[in-house]
Amino acid sequence: MEWENKDRQSTAVSTLGEFALIEHLTKGFELQNPGSLVGIGDDAAVIHFQKEHGLISTDMLVEGVHFDLGYMPLTHLGYKSAVVNISDICAMNGRPTQLTLSLAVSNRFTLEALEHFYDGFAKACAHYKVDLVGGDTTSSNKGMIISVTVLGEAEKEKTTYRSKAADNELLVVSGDLGGAYLGLQVLEREKQVFQVNPQHQPDLEPYHYLVERQLKPEARLDIVELLEKLEVQPTAMIDISDGLSSEVIHLCQNSQLGCQLYEEKIPIDPTVISTSEEFKMDPTTVALNGGEDYELLFTIKQEDFPKIKGNPNLTVIGHMTEASRGAQLVTRSGELFPLQAQGWNAFNQED
Amino acid sequence: MEWENKDRQSTAVSTLGEFALIEHLTKGFELQNPGSLVGIGDDAAVIHFQKEHGLISTDMLVEGVHFDLGYMPLTHLGYKSAVVNISDICAMNGRPTQLTLSLAVSNRFTLEALEHFYDGFAKACAHYKVDLVGGDTTSSNKGMIISVTVLGEAEKEKTTYRSKAADNELLVVSGDLGGAYLGLQVLEREKQVFQVNPQHQPDLEPYHYLVERQLKPEARLDIVELLEKLEVQPTAMIDISDGLSSEVIHLCQNSQLGCQLYEEKIPIDPTVISTSEEFKMDPTTVALNGGEDYELLFTIKQEDFPKIKGNPNLTVIGHMTEASRGAQLVTRSGELFPLQAQGWNAFNQED
Repeated sequence: MEWENKDRQSTAVSTLGEFALIEHLTKGFELQNPGSLVGIGDDAAVIHFQKEHGLISTDMLVEGVHFDLGYMPLTHLGYKSAVVNISDICAMNGRPTQLTLSLAVSNRFTLEALEHFYDGFAKACAHYKVDLVGGDTTSSNKGMIISVTVLGEAEKEKTTYRSKAADNELLVVSGDLGGAYLGLQVLEREKQVFQVNPQHQPDLEPYHYLVERQLKPEARLDIVELLEKLEVQPTAMIDISDGLSSEVIHLCQNSQLGCQLYEEKIPIDPTVISTSEEFKMDPTTVALNGGEDYELLFTIKQEDFPKIKGNPNLTVIGHMTEASRGAQLVTRSGELFPLQAQGWNAFNQED
Repeated sequence: MEWENKDRQSTAVSTLGEFALIEHLTKGFELQNPGSLVGIGDDAAVIHFQKEHGLISTDMLVEGVHFDLGYMPLTHLGYKSAVVNISDICAMNGRPTQLTLSLAVSNRFTLEALEHFYDGFAKACAHYKVDLVGGDTTSSNKGMIISVTVLGEAEKEKTTYRSKAADNELLVVSGDLGGAYLGLQVLEREKQVFQVNPQHQPDLEPYHYLVERQLKPEARLDIVELLEKLEVQPTAMIDISDGLSSEVIHLCQNSQLGCQLYEEKIPIDPTVISTSEEFKMDPTTVALNGGEDYELLFTIKQEDFPKIKGNPNLTVIGHMTEASRGAQLVTRSGELFPLQAQGWNAFNQED
């Protein structure tokens, strides 16, 4: 593995002190956001929110639970660690501004491995114009643990909650669904083949879109910007990290509503359909329950429909109903099924 | 151990889903800060800073590296996890406002164990009037990993950096030093005795002050308030997490100055002196290099001296000099020694 400490040319992390290590890893990061007044180097970073609402969210990623370094390159992991947090700010209809990054790694990680991780993290910071303003790098007993906190901001009247959808509003999703989950299945399969036959050369080309969705997801800040441009104020919003089904149920429960979600409307990429067949899975099930797509799911008023109609980035997939009707899937044949959350549970993962 | 999953009455964490688990653990937390508009339950928390400067800092604590559950009760660990972060906001002369808490634990931890941890964390939140507004609870492959991020705020003209000390200013420290380190030595010794003889009943009473300094440290928000009341604006400030020597060097380097630190002025509790002797250690060395006291170290203008003179919470321990003179310790006998940072390095810890 690239990141293990077997190479004589590699540098043990312990050769640097804790301060020198953080200084070394973060030296390429420059503050670009006018609200970031002081970054790394004091007891706390100093920021100034330009808008009335400050936003904060945090996520922890654990090796062997949330990611597998067997097929997740460290650069991509760094990028994704930033993206999954930035996505939470987008889900509030806000703009991300700062990040903090804490990392615990065992002694098997080299300095070069950490550099790859920080490099990917820096690429995400640059892409989303977010500043790294704090963090911690320490040792773990086993594996790698990543904790990221993101700050963002929004104008008070733009901030969008999960709880403010209303009856009859339209349910809209960005992009397409199921790709990231199938990308993971493809990578898992290749890993198993590789373990049996290390000479095997995988051909991932047909699965390029799926693998990219898994390894290098993007937060839909472009959708936040698009909605502003279209002058559409979403009434409620959430990002799809755990699967469409689970997130629709969250929106319904938080807004005390039901919904009708039309199977035929769910946006699914052709590669997801063909690869689902290859894996003997139903594409709708993959789109409903596969997580990590980081698309945005939101509701809009009926009167806003003309503003989004025909936009290739946005698909109306259903509408909100009274709570008593529950969250329902309307199949292609017109049958109704209650949506079920296959909520991902970190404590039930096998390792 | 109290926190292991051996008891039939205990509850496995995996019996609850991830959302239900977080909901259960955080249900006792109420928002009390007017700046905390929305707490846990949406994609991000929504906050409003009342002052111009927002502050953010983060810390990661790893079992076996930063703490030992063999003698650290989980309630205390929860309290301390909040305190060490709050201390960073105090070190900017700010007031803490919100916290996020992410926790990764292996399957050996029961729900009851996590409840104890959150209980301690809640006590710190209540004591410092800080709101828990976000977090994550997930599984780890080994042990417990805690990541806390703290937000705070300060008026622009009050925010205090490490870099703004000036030549001839007075170096001041709050409280007394070395206690937390000796508390750790006492607990380590008891643990070793216990391993040899499990029937052994430890008598920690003579070491009560030291053990409390280690297990239940406090952030010196009271000092931030005291300085405001005394109308003293510190010119530079840092908290003492790694030992006085290391922090004095940070202040000097960041302010591009030297300093003279007088051994005889360093505030040391009588219990630290007697217990240092028992451990055959020099009390000055313990005060200079023992960490985790979380006292504040700061500089003030000479003209502010009358305002703090005689205050039992504050001790002038030296003064700043030109950079060329370096950071020096002036011993009781008048000799000069360069201060040395025995900077704690997580990657060099034995386990």
